[in-house]
Amino acid sequence: MAPNNPAPPDSTRRSERSRRAIYDAAIALVVEVGYPKTTIEGIAARAGVGKQTIYRWWGSKADVLLEAFLDLSEQAARTAAQEHESHEGREGRAGHESQGIPDTGDLAADLKLVLRATVDELRDPGFEAPSRALAADGVVNEELGRRFVAQLLEPQLQLYVDRLRSAQETGQVRPDIDPRIALELFVSPLAQRWLQYTGPITYEYTDTLVDYALNGLAPR
Amino acid sequence: MAPNNPAPPDSTRRSERSRRAIYDAAIALVVEVGYPKTTIEGIAARAGVGKQTIYRWWGSKADVLLEAFLDLSEQAARTAAQEHESHEGREGRAGHESQGIPDTGDLAADLKLVLRATVDELRDPGFEAPSRALAADGVVNEELGRRFVAQLLEPQLQLYVDRLRSAQETGQVRPDIDPRIALELFVSPLAQRWLQYTGPITYEYTDTLVDYALNGLAPR
Repeated sequence: MAPNNPAPPDSTRRSERSRRAIYDAAIALVVEVGYPKTTIEGIAARAGVGKQTIYRWWGSKADVLLEAFLDLSEQAARTAAQEHESHEGREGRAGHESQGIPDTGDLAADLKLVLRATVDELRDPGFEAPSRALAADGVVNEELGRRFVAQLLEPQLQLYVDRLRSAQETGQVRPDIDPRIALELFVSPLAQRWLQYTGPITYEYTDTLVDYALNGLAPR
Repeated sequence: MAPNNPAPPDSTRRSERSRRAIYDAAIALVVEVGYPKTTIEGIAARAGVGKQTIYRWWGSKADVLLEAFLDLSEQAARTAAQEHESHEGREGRAGHESQGIPDTGDLAADLKLVLRATVDELRDPGFEAPSRALAADGVVNEELGRRFVAQLLEPQLQLYVDRLRSAQETGQVRPDIDPRIALELFVSPLAQRWLQYTGPITYEYTDTLVDYALNGLAPR
């Protein structure tokens, strides 16, 4: 702790500790018993808080879990960005900004970089188990699947849409291409290999996906 | 029944009826309670057979389910092929042969045809619910996931490998392309949309995937 930082008021610190305990409990329960059997009661008991504390902040278990996963993704992205930036010897930038896709003007290089970071994230044990548990429940629970995709996955995919649009402006991607479909050519194969164990997940693999998607399979 | 067909011996007919009842029971249970809670006992009770009947033919519940799904896929493929062939006014060809990917010399047209049939299959309610239940369990159970992919999904994917190899021979696909990765550019986006509800599944969508994959996103 930096000595000059004024300590937050006790109630704020208590709230922050409770919030963190609730996130951790919610994610641990989804890993252990799955989404259908995770309850507000179970989360409260494991977090050591009263049920009413959870209901004061969130309307349902889906709301709690959604925030817990957003928090988990932000932590993972922050860690990855800090590691990357310390490698590069640059100043750290905190928060969401680091989740954007770089635009160096070289589309292939930028996509490869981001997909390699995704490979690292998918292999991170702290991220993998809860993400698998939630993804599995989303496959058989359409409402849950759609909700979590809309709030967790789609915002990530929109970053690819933005990067592909910028590449259309510089002429690296054809103007008639729909970026929302185009991104699936390199994102979905990685997702399927991860979800269904259909093949190994390596940097070489994601680099290849980017090359195939940009250049196509037919002779040029 | 064709009157000239000799009737099978009673025990064969009884076995066939039991086998069918066991397949149906296994698939219904996976849909209702999921893979972890599906048991040999439960399948036997629902099928109206003794446990020992199941153990005589299969070593485990995974073995029963694997065969039940193979049977379900074959039925779906046979139905789709018959419908297609009656549209075309051709003679029906039974069994596995109809699952091959056509080779008319026009790679894009052949891939689009097969992916449109997959769209139909993924939307077939009799196929969708059990496939989702099994896929969901495979996401969190690596052994189950790998086994079912190896025995149910990978043989289907190898048909694309064969078709892409043939296209390499005729110069429609670059010789340096790895067909096993290339097929993922159009197969995995459809799979992810189906598994995760990330977007609508239409013929127009799968046609677009084929065009993007073959021609690439970059200007030609």
